[in-house]
Formats: sequence, C-alpha cells, structure tokens
Amino acid sequence: MTTSAHPRPLIAIDWGTSSLRGARLDTSGKVIESRELARGILTVPPGQFEAVFNEHFGDWMQADGALCLISGMAGSRQGWQEAPYCPCPAGFAELGQHLLWLQPDRIALVPGLSCTSADTLNTPDVMRGEEVQIFGALQLAGRDSATLVLPGTHSKWVQVERGRVTQFSTFMTGEVYALMSQHSILGKTLDLNGAFDEAAFLQGVDQSQTAGSVLHHLFAVRTLGLFERLSAAQLPSFLSGLLIGEELRQQTVNADSAPVILIGSDTLTQRYSLALQHLGINCQSRGSEATWAGLFALVSAC
Amino acid sequence: MTTSAHPRPLIAIDWGTSSLRGARLDTSGKVIESRELARGILTVPPGQFEAVFNEHFGDWMQADGALCLISGMAGSRQGWQEAPYCPCPAGFAELGQHLLWLQPDRIALVPGLSCTSADTLNTPDVMRGEEVQIFGALQLAGRDSATLVLPGTHSKWVQVERGRVTQFSTFMTGEVYALMSQHSILGKTLDLNGAFDEAAFLQGVDQSQTAGSVLHHLFAVRTLGLFERLSAAQLPSFLSGLLIGEELRQQTVNADSAPVILIGSDTLTQRYSLALQHLGINCQSRGSEATWAGLFALVSAC
Repeated sequence: MTTSAHPRPLIAIDWGTSSLRGARLDTSGKVIESRELARGILTVPPGQFEAVFNEHFGDWMQADGALCLISGMAGSRQGWQEAPYCPCPAGFAELGQHLLWLQPDRIALVPGLSCTSADTLNTPDVMRGEEVQIFGALQLAGRDSATLVLPGTHSKWVQVERGRVTQFSTFMTGEVYALMSQHSILGKTLDLNGAFDEAAFLQGVDQSQTAGSVLHHLFAVRTLGLFERLSAAQLPSFLSGLLIGEELRQQTVNADSAPVILIGSDTLTQRYSLALQHLGINCQSRGSEATWAGLFALVSAC
Repeated sequence: MTTSAHPRPLIAIDWGTSSLRGARLDTSGKVIESRELARGILTVPPGQFEAVFNEHFGDWMQADGALCLISGMAGSRQGWQEAPYCPCPAGFAELGQHLLWLQPDRIALVPGLSCTSADTLNTPDVMRGEEVQIFGALQLAGRDSATLVLPGTHSKWVQVERGRVTQFSTFMTGEVYALMSQHSILGKTLDLNGAFDEAAFLQGVDQSQTAGSVLHHLFAVRTLGLFERLSAAQLPSFLSGLLIGEELRQQTVNADSAPVILIGSDTLTQRYSLALQHLGINCQSRGSEATWAGLFALVSAC
C-alpha cells in the first residue's frame, strides 16, 4: 500500500466491459473534466491496454504528481493485468492493500471483491468496479452501513457494515431480460419500442410475488399477449417488472430500516425504485458520480 | 362430437412446431407403421397444410373408413386452422366435444387446453399436444388421477383428477437452458460437448434449493468456473440441474403419494427422474408411445 502524505490530483478511470470512462479530479475531489469512450476491454487486443490508456488519458497524466486509479474489468483476466479479488469483508483498508500497481506510485488497478454464500455450499460471488461505486455512494450519503443495489446486466445486492462490504449477491436480471426479450419465443410477441408502462410493470412485480417459479411466470408474457390482456407494447414493461420483482422477492430488507441505496442509470434506478416502493421498501438513488467519489475517497484513504 | 359405432383404423398425427410425426393404428390400437418428418408447422407456408398432409399421409388415408386425429401446434393460429383452447377441467368428453373437423368424420384437429392460475391474478396458461400424451400415459399406466410432468422447451406440470386435467403450469426451463448456455455470458465458459456429469447435475439441484432466486444461482455457473470448482465440461450439467431443480423447487408433491408420471425423451426424463429421486419424489417414465395411445383412446371414446 502506497501512502501519500497529501492528496494529489487524481485521474479516476472506470474501465468496464463495454465502455471506458475517465474523470480528472482536483485535490478537493471536484471533477474538472470527464471523458467517455466506446473502448471497453472487449475492444482492446491483449498487450494494447497501456497504449489505449496513453492515447486517451496521456495528457491528463502530465499533471504534476498525477495519480491514476483504474476500477472495473480492466483488472480482470481479460483486462490490462489481473488484479486478484479482495475477499470480503473488505473496506478501504483492504482495497488499498490489494491495489495492483502498474507503474509505482502512479497507476494502480483497484481489485474487485469476492465473497462466499452463507449456506453450506459456499458458492463464490464476485464484483469488479461496483466496489468503488459502493464506497462512493456511502461517502455521498454520509453513511457507513447500508443495503445497496446496483441494477444492471448483473445486478448486485450488497451489505455494508461499518464501512466494510460483508456480503453480496449477483443477479443476472438484466441479461435474462435481454435474452428473453430478444432471443426467446417471448420476443416474437412483444414490441420493444413500446413506451414504459407503469401499470404493466407493476403487474409484473405482483406476478413475481405469487407462488411458483419465475420459470413459470415468464410464460405469462406469452399467454397474457395470446389472450390480449396486455398489448405487445405493454409486454416489455410486464417482463421487466416480473424479473426485477423476482430479484426483490426474497430480499430481507426491513420496511422500517434505513433506505436502500440504488446506484445506476436513471432508467434502471427509477424502475427499481418503483418496484421497491410498491413492495413497501424505502430507497434513494445515486448516479455515476458515485464512481468518482469512490475513487477519490480511496486515494485519500491510502 | 362425431361418434363411431365401431372403432375404425386411426391415422394418429402429432404435428408440432418443429416436427411432424404420424402413426397408422389398427382397430385394436396397435401401431402398424410410423413416420417422422422435419415438417413442423414453421416449415409450412399458410394454405399449404392440406397439401403437406396429403403428400405424407395421403396413402394411409386411402384405407376404408380411415379416421385421422391431429394434435399439436397444427391447431394453433399459425397452423392448419385454429382450434380454440378447451378450458379445464377437461377430459376425453370435453376434448371430443371441441374437436375441429377439417373434413367431416374424416380429419379432425384436437384442441389444446387452457386454464387460469389459482391465485387472484387469474393468469392464463395453455398447452397444445401435451393433452393427448397425458391421457395416453394415464391409459398406459392404468390410472385416472396423477401428477404428470412433460419436460421440454416449455415443461408442463399437470394435475389430473378422475380422468380430467384440473390444473397445469408451464415452465420455460428448456428454453432458458438453451438461451443461457448459448447466448449468455455463461456460454463463454462452458463446454457444451461435455458428457453428462451426474455429480455436477445434482450439485446444481442442491444449489437451486438454497435460499435466493434462480437469477442469482445462475451466476454460480460463472463463479464456479472462475474459481475452478467445476470444469468447463461439467458446467452444462450443473446449469441443467440448477434449472430443473428450480422447476421442482416449489412443486407440492407428497413423497408418499403415487409416483409422478414423466413423459418425454429418454435424455430428459432420465434427468428429471434423477432430480426428483434426489428430492425424495417417486416417478415413472413414458415415451412417445403415449401420443398414439392418447389419440387412440380419444377416438375410441368419441
């Protein structure tokens, strides 16, 4: 772990599977400038990560004492270099100890987190990039314990206690939605251009809470269309409610506890917010600013 | 409903989405000859169903007094002609009353069945073709009440009481398996050419019975591979166990009641049989002979 006696200008990078985002922060943590590029790790040939990084952020790295932290899939086996997962429970101290320095005291990869299920099977779970958003959102919310949800292709439900992630679970909700709406038989009857329909969405949430499996409930997308109880334009909203509702179904969040923190795009956090409130669970939302706040907090703690 | 004073030679046809199967039965119900063709309804242009039928079964229809019953998707909106669903509860009497005669007293479409969920949402469910297999399997087993399972792309769980289907549920298990193994991120790490691995399959069944959602458990296919706890060749068996286990998870079958009847291909009924026995549920299996037995029993009852 490298420590810096004084904060230095931070180049904060979120290098994911499909996109590369960066922000230049001043010594107070304020974003001076940000960039977003369609250069996710899937577009970068092996051995070319440093070149792509220099091409897009080399100018920022000229600043005196500039320090760069990179989170996300750039630290995976398919990325710049593999930064081994940091096991939970983990907070800033553990992340800082597991930073993988690509250039000493200049550029580091932030490791992802791993945990194992609480049951006897000890099934592993992993995240890369979300850990930074989690700590950033907590900083912004002024909390050190919370249940957080990061909706997306692979949604994460996260427990943080006194500044450390203790447990989390991944849900393939977004990917299953994409597969079912684009590649399954359901895709033949739904109109993906339909505007979001709140009533159909909540009908999906309600359906997901009834007895039986989501493998059964999914078929309702077909039959409700067949019997003309929902239009082709309403069916994507129903499907979305069904899957988000399934994700929420067995979460043990007390309705009277502190609000769940949602981190993600407006479109997704609005849907999760609707579903959570429909089920009587309070929540508040944070956007992409959580990433920059998290990387800044991490570098400040190092 | 057309009645026949005496049994007549039956041409039994199962015309599904992807295949066209037919059998010629004598007046005792014995199969004399059968044919299977890759002429599912998806391959037949509108208006061409009669021509395709005559091409493949015209010779059989020359027999004196030949009667033809066609079950399956040929009776759907995309088929030869739409035979409206027969609502449950339904047995031979109801199916016979709802036969759709394409040629009077010569060729009829067997309708599918519909039902609605027992909860307040009254979500509809449907089947086409399985109803004939169900009644055939019951005839072969000498039972008039049972829980039946028809595994497949869209598995059906069916309750039959005193000769009538009272309730059923569809599970998109087979389709979700195909989508996850071929089109999802999981497909990148699993080797679909791996031989069936019973231990990995049962590990998937066990995983599916733990707390949480299948949307979460699916991610274990990725992490168990990532942490090298299962090989790429074992992962398809684990995924299969996970999804079949999810389908079985909330079924209310008493371990001490009469065996569940499985109807389907050997590959699938063997897997379901393994999973059911692993969960302490007795079962027995039937193959495609159930279709011919069902159509023969139906024509005999008409």
